[in-house]
Amino acid sequence: MTNRVALVAIGETKYDEHWDYSLRDLASMAAQKLYMSIFDRFDYRNIESIFVGNAASAAFTGQLHLNAFVADAIGLTNKPSLRIEAADASGAAAVRAAYFAIKSGMFNTALVLGIEKMTELTVSTQINTVQSSVLDREWEEDAGLSLAAAYAIMARKHFETYGTTREHLAAVSAKNHEHAVLNPNAQFRRAFSIEQVLKATMVAEPLSLLDCSPTSDGASAILLANEDLARKITDDPIWISASAQGSDTISLMARDSLTTLKSVRSAAEDAYKQAKIADPKKEIKLIEAHDSFTITELLALEGLKIYEPGQAGPATLAGETHREGSGIPVNVSGGLKAKGHPLGATGVGQLVELALQMWGNAGERQVDDVDRALAVSIGGTGATSFIHILSR
Amino acid sequence: MTNRVALVAIGETKYDEHWDYSLRDLASMAAQKLYMSIFDRFDYRNIESIFVGNAASAAFTGQLHLNAFVADAIGLTNKPSLRIEAADASGAAAVRAAYFAIKSGMFNTALVLGIEKMTELTVSTQINTVQSSVLDREWEEDAGLSLAAAYAIMARKHFETYGTTREHLAAVSAKNHEHAVLNPNAQFRRAFSIEQVLKATMVAEPLSLLDCSPTSDGASAILLANEDLARKITDDPIWISASAQGSDTISLMARDSLTTLKSVRSAAEDAYKQAKIADPKKEIKLIEAHDSFTITELLALEGLKIYEPGQAGPATLAGETHREGSGIPVNVSGGLKAKGHPLGATGVGQLVELALQMWGNAGERQVDDVDRALAVSIGGTGATSFIHILSR
Repeated sequence: MTNRVALVAIGETKYDEHWDYSLRDLASMAAQKLYMSIFDRFDYRNIESIFVGNAASAAFTGQLHLNAFVADAIGLTNKPSLRIEAADASGAAAVRAAYFAIKSGMFNTALVLGIEKMTELTVSTQINTVQSSVLDREWEEDAGLSLAAAYAIMARKHFETYGTTREHLAAVSAKNHEHAVLNPNAQFRRAFSIEQVLKATMVAEPLSLLDCSPTSDGASAILLANEDLARKITDDPIWISASAQGSDTISLMARDSLTTLKSVRSAAEDAYKQAKIADPKKEIKLIEAHDSFTITELLALEGLKIYEPGQAGPATLAGETHREGSGIPVNVSGGLKAKGHPLGATGVGQLVELALQMWGNAGERQVDDVDRALAVSIGGTGATSFIHILSR
Repeated sequence: MTNRVALVAIGETKYDEHWDYSLRDLASMAAQKLYMSIFDRFDYRNIESIFVGNAASAAFTGQLHLNAFVADAIGLTNKPSLRIEAADASGAAAVRAAYFAIKSGMFNTALVLGIEKMTELTVSTQINTVQSSVLDREWEEDAGLSLAAAYAIMARKHFETYGTTREHLAAVSAKNHEHAVLNPNAQFRRAFSIEQVLKATMVAEPLSLLDCSPTSDGASAILLANEDLARKITDDPIWISASAQGSDTISLMARDSLTTLKSVRSAAEDAYKQAKIADPKKEIKLIEAHDSFTITELLALEGLKIYEPGQAGPATLAGETHREGSGIPVNVSGGLKAKGHPLGATGVGQLVELALQMWGNAGERQVDDVDRALAVSIGGTGATSFIHILSR
């Protein structure tokens, strides 16, 4: 199978608490930005298919049938559409389904639109309940576990096993907040020091409020195309050189390890093979990593084999993963922590950031010479992980 | 693109109010039946991917991340999985996503599992709210429209335009209930006369209780494979000769017509082209059609061009679509009305019925010589429709 799939255009709303915008508004805003960016080369009405990434609009906004709803909202009523859910990795899952559809030869173009409108539920405990339904409801959530508590368990085990500390976690948050200051689409354009993260209200020991990603509304869109059409739409297509997925048990208690994300590990092996990457530390120039909690970013980087188990924390504290650090910059967008985490949008938003960087359109936060970049999106506590690698 | 995709195995639970079984149980039961049917030819642990069709488990059971949840429940924890939602056509949507994945060459096998556990919500108004969230929430549901009321509007317009009557609708219900008597997996194995349907409690004029599909729990599974593997798993693969989708506006008020399902019409055109069908009335031998309400079946048959607008009702009343009628038998399984309508399972269950019939395994309700069969699954009021055509 040689059909290559390219990312050819992007569009995104700011991630924020969008009290004045509905689900329909957000979808439309992101799509319109994408349409405008290619209007002189390609009529958006010729887009052939739509893939919607969304985690829980039924619970957040009472809207199901989200494929049809979004198609309608973005002016593509008559086009075939599917909606994909994989917890807070739903956006990346939709990218993958669209990738299949183009590779199969069924469509020449696919618009992927990730979206979540979380603030329609105004009681934070309700939002927390929806977020925690990504856990195993019968065996975990009904027993009182929340998503933050689940990651707190994983963090504590990581502390115990590898000597990771709260300072290491806080360094993730401080870095990502510093990055977000330069991203106009980020929800929190405000720096926090490691001290401030450590002193913030505790949510689930050892995770403070500033170790947790926020409640966000937003939409991100990318347009995928096969090789022929890609070259018509843009002079500078970005190739999807890997689309991989890894899996693990949904409940923590059934896992072999609490300190390794097996799903990231297996997806990475597959992705590196697809993209013919022998040494990811040298060949990958930029990473957007799922940091739903600060510990998640460390687990992700170790799962990707960018760092050995236990080494991601010290490396982050040493500044290696900072935009100007000595290692691979991670979450230059601000990440889920500071750019924001509208669940279904996030996985698509990661690719929006990578594309901006690869095209040299990232403004003040531009990282130079990114010819190969990776996004890892993690559902819940890691029962599902998706990795996409982009190449020029 | 010549990769052919085959249906090679099936498994299904009875559709029912399964008070004693959880979401996990139902998934596992359907998958195990499928595994057992091929255990001497193929080890289920070699299934490469999983596609879950589910409409609203977040709302019904508080369980999100359904791809990982199901993969885990059916003993395929480590396999890549996606969950697809398209209202009550979610099962058919998952079939389509799996079809793409095999056709793309990414996987050799894909298990499609459609599932819904609706009775976990025990208050019928809550269930009704979830069902109605397949409408446009802002423009329809918040204004007080329920799904039954939306179809009642379409039925009344059909009455006014074509002279369709309540007797025509009742004939659909009576036929499907009579069919269900012979289906051990059907929820209501009980015949009702046209008189009884007409006299049942009114839900939304002109639709009585016996014009509406029930609240159901259940799971249906099919295994898809590429040609090579299909021939290893079974001596009698059933080919998917068309997978098509049509779309329309999500809200009724934006549509050109209330009496034609444009999404079925356009999906049918595409499907007939894919399957090289010139005269569907002669070439299709069996149909499973979405009858969420009795009017839906008539609209579906007219959308498929099996009957001209206004003719499906009289034809049904004349017995043409009965298992032993002179036309194409429709919903020999009992349909959504009498087999049951566990939302996410339904679209997969339609293909289970067609495969049983094509393999000659349909027992007392066997229809002879089915070499080509069609399933049409409709989301909500028809903003999304899927058609799959199976051939031997």
